[in-house]
Amino acid sequence: MAGTIEQNLATQGITLHEPASPIANYVGFVRTGNLLFVSGQVCVNPEGKLIAKGKLGAGVSVEQGNAAARGCAINLLAQIKAALGDLDKVVRVVRLGGFVNSTPDFVDGPKVLNGASDLMVAAFGDKGRHARTTVGVASLPADAAVEVEGLFEVA
Amino acid sequence: MAGTIEQNLATQGITLHEPASPIANYVGFVRTGNLLFVSGQVCVNPEGKLIAKGKLGAGVSVEQGNAAARGCAINLLAQIKAALGDLDKVVRVVRLGGFVNSTPDFVDGPKVLNGASDLMVAAFGDKGRHARTTVGVASLPADAAVEVEGLFEVA
Amino acid sequence: MAGTIEQNLATQGITLHEPASPIANYVGFVRTGNLLFVSGQVCVNPEGKLIAKGKLGAGVSVEQGNAAARGCAINLLAQIKAALGDLDKVVRVVRLGGFVNSTPDFVDGPKVLNGASDLMVAAFGDKGRHARTTVGVASLPADAAVEVEGLFEVA
Repeated sequence: MAGTIEQNLATQGITLHEPASPIANYVGFVRTGNLLFVSGQVCVNPEGKLIAKGKLGAGVSVEQGNAAARGCAINLLAQIKAALGDLDKVVRVVRLGGFVNSTPDFVDGPKVLNGASDLMVAAFGDKGRHARTTVGVASLPADAAVEVEGLFEVA
Repeated sequence: MAGTIEQNLATQGITLHEPASPIANYVGFVRTGNLLFVSGQVCVNPEGKLIAKGKLGAGVSVEQGNAAARGCAINLLAQIKAALGDLDKVVRVVRLGGFVNSTPDFVDGPKVLNGASDLMVAAFGDKGRHARTTVGVASLPADAAVEVEGLFEVA
Repeated sequence: MAGTIEQNLATQGITLHEPASPIANYVGFVRTGNLLFVSGQVCVNPEGKLIAKGKLGAGVSVEQGNAAARGCAINLLAQIKAALGDLDKVVRVVRLGGFVNSTPDFVDGPKVLNGASDLMVAAFGDKGRHARTTVGVASLPADAAVEVEGLFEVA
């Protein structure tokens, strides 16, 4: 049975899929002590299709980027569920690292990353508030518009 | 009363301001166990004005970038003070992550980041020596020249 | 005497050198509790010469980048040995952060970073599987093609 956090998400229309395993010598997450490090998640939907492809500042709007960052956050939650079995075991969202595929003159990365931050608070409430670093990068894997990594304190 | 670290900074002409809270669903810092993760700080002065705006390699000199990185480090200290009340509770500066707003041909990021590293050692002495990662990024929030995030072991 | 991990590497033709100390106010690694944070390592060989210089997408091939990432991973191992004296004390490779010096249209960063991930598994077996974040950056120190930072759980 899904825990209360996952039920809360379901009422918001968000369901978690089984995350794809990396096809290489790395994994989706590693737990050490009470810390769960989750690999950078690009903005793919549950079918593996990019939510937004290309660069902010050239073709991808802030609104599209925000939706893409939200998708990255959902993928982080899917990894947490795979790691712990239950999102209710998250004690605190500690840190998100956000990478926005950007032209050199795009300076609104924080508005993009808010899509991921808002999703964390929608899921976990105040425990979802996190430290955050946002930067604009030259390129991302598969030309994804956004990639987000996460660190979580877990029970 | 300010602790010895903060008094030490005052003798160097550095006073700490109340940091601005992020106007979004994230926070300036999160503590988990004895680790304090501080959000990426852009190079704004206590009045919120950018110390250096634009790119290294185009308009912003290494010297200006170094001063900007120092400003980021001061903002990290202001967040630590807000988190702990007293900088003396810092056991060790563990890691700085430095992001330099760079043209594709700017390769002197380490000289820029030294402004942040030097400030940490000026504040904490040998406990201020840290692991560090420096990269040149395509863009930063608000066109800041430098952004630095920090991880601290705290008592 | 070298431990079993280092002997295992030797049979693969990989020997570890004394890592160069940073000539600045930071250090190659910091341990806090059971976590060892290692500074970002650029792709230099034991003689300090860049294994690959310049950008993926312009002059540096994926194969060259993969070899460069492998070199970064070897440098991470050299730092671990300097920190712990023996690679056998590594309990788990927790996270690698990979930065690929990229043109705006280079989207194969993961193929590059696999050079670092494969080396970790060659060294540590299943304990070498890690969380990973790969991004393409505008520039790197000394025009290195790849930089990788690492986090390790240690005994």
